[in-house]
Amino acid sequence: MPSCATIVSPPSYAIPFFTSTSSTSSPTAKLLSKRRWNPLIQTKTMTSLGSKGAVRAGVSIEKETPEAERPETFLRGGDTAEALSSSSSVRARFEKMIREAQDSVCDAIEAADGGAKFKEDVWSRPGGGGGISRVLQDGAVWEKAGVNVSVVYGVMPPDAYRAAKGAAASPDEKPGPVPFFAAGISSVLHPKNPFAPTMHFNYRYFETDAPKDAPGAPKQWWFGGGTDLTPAYIFEEDVKHFHSIQKQACDKFDPTFYPRFKKWCDDYFYIKHRGERRGLGGIFFDDLNDYDQEMLLSFATECANSVVPSYIPIIEKRKDTPFTDHQKAWQQLRRGRYVEFNLVYDRGTTFGLKTGGRIESILVSLPLTSRWEYDHKPEEGSEEWKLLDACINPKEWI
Amino acid sequence: MPSCATIVSPPSYAIPFFTSTSSTSSPTAKLLSKRRWNPLIQTKTMTSLGSKGAVRAGVSIEKETPEAERPETFLRGGDTAEALSSSSSVRARFEKMIREAQDSVCDAIEAADGGAKFKEDVWSRPGGGGGISRVLQDGAVWEKAGVNVSVVYGVMPPDAYRAAKGAAASPDEKPGPVPFFAAGISSVLHPKNPFAPTMHFNYRYFETDAPKDAPGAPKQWWFGGGTDLTPAYIFEEDVKHFHSIQKQACDKFDPTFYPRFKKWCDDYFYIKHRGERRGLGGIFFDDLNDYDQEMLLSFATECANSVVPSYIPIIEKRKDTPFTDHQKAWQQLRRGRYVEFNLVYDRGTTFGLKTGGRIESILVSLPLTSRWEYDHKPEEGSEEWKLLDACINPKEWI
Repeated sequence: MPSCATIVSPPSYAIPFFTSTSSTSSPTAKLLSKRRWNPLIQTKTMTSLGSKGAVRAGVSIEKETPEAERPETFLRGGDTAEALSSSSSVRARFEKMIREAQDSVCDAIEAADGGAKFKEDVWSRPGGGGGISRVLQDGAVWEKAGVNVSVVYGVMPPDAYRAAKGAAASPDEKPGPVPFFAAGISSVLHPKNPFAPTMHFNYRYFETDAPKDAPGAPKQWWFGGGTDLTPAYIFEEDVKHFHSIQKQACDKFDPTFYPRFKKWCDDYFYIKHRGERRGLGGIFFDDLNDYDQEMLLSFATECANSVVPSYIPIIEKRKDTPFTDHQKAWQQLRRGRYVEFNLVYDRGTTFGLKTGGRIESILVSLPLTSRWEYDHKPEEGSEEWKLLDACINPKEWI
Repeated sequence: MPSCATIVSPPSYAIPFFTSTSSTSSPTAKLLSKRRWNPLIQTKTMTSLGSKGAVRAGVSIEKETPEAERPETFLRGGDTAEALSSSSSVRARFEKMIREAQDSVCDAIEAADGGAKFKEDVWSRPGGGGGISRVLQDGAVWEKAGVNVSVVYGVMPPDAYRAAKGAAASPDEKPGPVPFFAAGISSVLHPKNPFAPTMHFNYRYFETDAPKDAPGAPKQWWFGGGTDLTPAYIFEEDVKHFHSIQKQACDKFDPTFYPRFKKWCDDYFYIKHRGERRGLGGIFFDDLNDYDQEMLLSFATECANSVVPSYIPIIEKRKDTPFTDHQKAWQQLRRGRYVEFNLVYDRGTTFGLKTGGRIESILVSLPLTSRWEYDHKPEEGSEEWKLLDACINPKEWI
């Protein structure tokens, strides 16, 4: 399976996609912004640009349009006929799954916070699809909690498809634009109490169709995602609990999943210039398609359903623990590291920023507040030092 | 003149350079870490790697070594004979200038702060040169003020030199490693009071020698730098004062400098994903060599000498102005933008992070504290809105 991940399936808030910037402001694009799907018009737009136009326009994201209410589905009416086929049924079921997960995680967060409510923003994009961003800010327990879903589809320029396939173009190969579908849920939860950990999760599903002028070519699909914990202080029982629930979810499907995805997580959330991970890991996987598609859909669902039981009990235990200014400052320094990782390394964030994704959705992952002290070094043997040590030298928690 | 700037003259704290990672830990490299310059050993090291080794090792920065005291000069003893030539005399005079500027800026900051003192870290690097980092943290006026100088030299792999020349290698062209010299002063000053602006300045000088196996090729040199102001609130008289002093410095040398470098500054400090500049600009230039070298050395000196008179009077006026929590929170949001620019776009920072520069020197540019609120929009017509508007639509201040 070729790896598309470096380009098209980032583990962050906005599911990026490939389209031409020029189409957004054209009269044709305005027609496309109507809900009703008209593949003829879209095809015409792309064709009129030609492959050269699409390549010149590069990778970009159309501007989103705010919507007054969330639709039943972000899939288009035109997909209904196709929806009977197994492939589009995975699309529909994945959207249903992430939207249910968004509801259940937000419900659990609101219940644990005990007062604050999520603010919801619904948006659509002219080219196809849209998203629901939910943010709870300055609650009793969380300083910032974002839980976003997006379901987007469109057409990749041929060059992006080639890059995704990882193959060089042969001189006589001229594939047309490639239809794609990407859907995901993504969330970062930053509590106020320095003993209550930050948690991030993201699950996503990606499909490409055959290039428009090569109808025989196979469709491709893959899953990605993960759930990871970022405390400022280590409570071993908390970290063990978190990793155990992740392992349980993995073990239901394949005994190799947890060790493999645990290491993948440690490798991914690495702040190279610091030589440390941003937190204590969890699971992470990408480009997963070398298993049964139904099995992976069930696995992603299981992972998303494990978010609340792996995290909320830890919050309940730590949210009211008294803390000092010193401990708060250390949490803020670790939040600074979170910012460094997300802005410098996270593929979804950096891709989203560079291609014009919905900035507020992408950067909701940043903490409300953070801190950088010059040359800060925790005292050897201190609780702060122990956390740093575990970020430098990842441990096996179970 | 070819542009080397995207690779070798970043406007930030660590002056990066090209060398082979492998040479740092070799016994030969240890010999090189002695102060006495031995070109024979260095040449041998590079030759033993061969051009392929150097290319494979890629772009990297040697680890710095802490030093107990600052040396008289970071130039090597072996440079003394050469120092009589005009080229190395620019090196020596530029080092002298930036070290004097470091002293005078730090003195002015300490005097205005009225209590806090800079902490100094001196470091050297085995391959050649070193630096002096000075940081004042949690003072009465500044929450974080960093003023760094570095003077580094070494050898660029041939590929980096080719990239710097902007020319493709011809099949029979096999240039050897290229000696280079880079020196700079860089500073970011973040005050506590939201009415007192952040200021950044950076001045740098760069030279390459002829490739070792092409002694006839010309040496190349250029200057870069700038000074810019980042307030959270606009006091028109302050911004006019700041820009006037910058313009005065420019006008002493060329009437085209201020308008050209003012626009360059607005263009450079652009946070693309926000569509806004990080602040209200100043001057910025890079790759400057199409003027007399002595004239540009004088110009850089004049710019560095303009830092204190353009900035300190503003601080004196604003440092004790009473402010509300709302105004402090807005300053913190603008600090968040500063972090976004530096981590995502600033060439010096991103280059330094990716190549292993001295992290604490590079990231001292980040504010002590910063803030990100979801979808924050200042009320139209408010003071916060006016600042944002000026960051989105750069103005002519004088």
